[in-house]
Amino acid sequence: MARGDTKNRLLEVGTRIFLERGYNHSGIESILQAADVPKGSFYNYFSSKEDFGLQVINRFASCFEAELDRFLGEETLSPLGRLKGYFESVIALLESNRCRNGCLVGNLSLEMADQSELLRTRLEEVFEGWVKRYADCLEAAQLAGEIPAEMNVRSLAEFWLNSWQGAVLRAKTARTTQPLRLFLDMTLGAVSV
Amino acid sequence: MARGDTKNRLLEVGTRIFLERGYNHSGIESILQAADVPKGSFYNYFSSKEDFGLQVINRFASCFEAELDRFLGEETLSPLGRLKGYFESVIALLESNRCRNGCLVGNLSLEMADQSELLRTRLEEVFEGWVKRYADCLEAAQLAGEIPAEMNVRSLAEFWLNSWQGAVLRAKTARTTQPLRLFLDMTLGAVSV
Repeated sequence: MARGDTKNRLLEVGTRIFLERGYNHSGIESILQAADVPKGSFYNYFSSKEDFGLQVINRFASCFEAELDRFLGEETLSPLGRLKGYFESVIALLESNRCRNGCLVGNLSLEMADQSELLRTRLEEVFEGWVKRYADCLEAAQLAGEIPAEMNVRSLAEFWLNSWQGAVLRAKTARTTQPLRLFLDMTLGAVSV
Repeated sequence: MARGDTKNRLLEVGTRIFLERGYNHSGIESILQAADVPKGSFYNYFSSKEDFGLQVINRFASCFEAELDRFLGEETLSPLGRLKGYFESVIALLESNRCRNGCLVGNLSLEMADQSELLRTRLEEVFEGWVKRYADCLEAAQLAGEIPAEMNVRSLAEFWLNSWQGAVLRAKTARTTQPLRLFLDMTLGAVSV
């Protein structure tokens, strides 16, 4: 396997294992084993477990950036329709394993924000990037008359992102998508003019 | 120290350490050491780390039950005023260490829901108990004319609990109470008639 392929494979397997077990509970050895990469070669690719964690977050954020581009760029739909499509696609993804995994960025926020300043800073950047994407779409919704003109779209986007993370958290203990669907009803349902 | 005192001390220290480091990252030995309890005596009090985790959750839930009793029973305030007082007291508590610890029930939900069915079931019960308390207070608010009569208070209570958990999560990465204050503005601010 080429060097880049091996690195990507480790990041892919790391994402899955971090989602399943969390960061602290995932040993480097078990990641190497699951990726079928020789023991001891980890440090050829990453300077530390924290560096690996950072690159797993970056990969996860890139995947979601691509999803956001796909859905929020869908100009045949209204701005709120695009956001709804995006959340519905994530609900379908979470439903595929009964909401057991949650969101990697949310999971690592609760687990690592107080243990690694490097990871905390990056996680907060990813959240801010998502808020910006929601806010831009909400601004378009406002221009299109879908939400009231006096609404502060930046605050609304912040609230939606945080509430969405809470819904994903609750879906993990409840093992149903009901909290996620309730989020949609209470947010997109509530703003329509 | 009497047997009950030692057990309580272990649960108290366990709560603090789980809040700081999470479940998987907290060794039994370090909890015993921090509680100044002899090594090897853990199993005199708890059948396993999971049993200990369950009892830590129970203790945390009892503390919050007492807080809910205190605030939601405050009949000199309107029902929404009581809920606001409750959330504001939790914000002050979280602010005391710059939102680093979060909520133990939320933290363990993300970390342990997929690793322990015993803990997941108990965490979900605690969430449901909190939703019930919010819903009862929202029903009183409805009777008092503070929120619209057609509103489904149970759904609203579910949404508020989940959104609150998301705000606490975000406060951890952002290291400010801003997500918690935004939660208050967007929830209690939004329902007032």
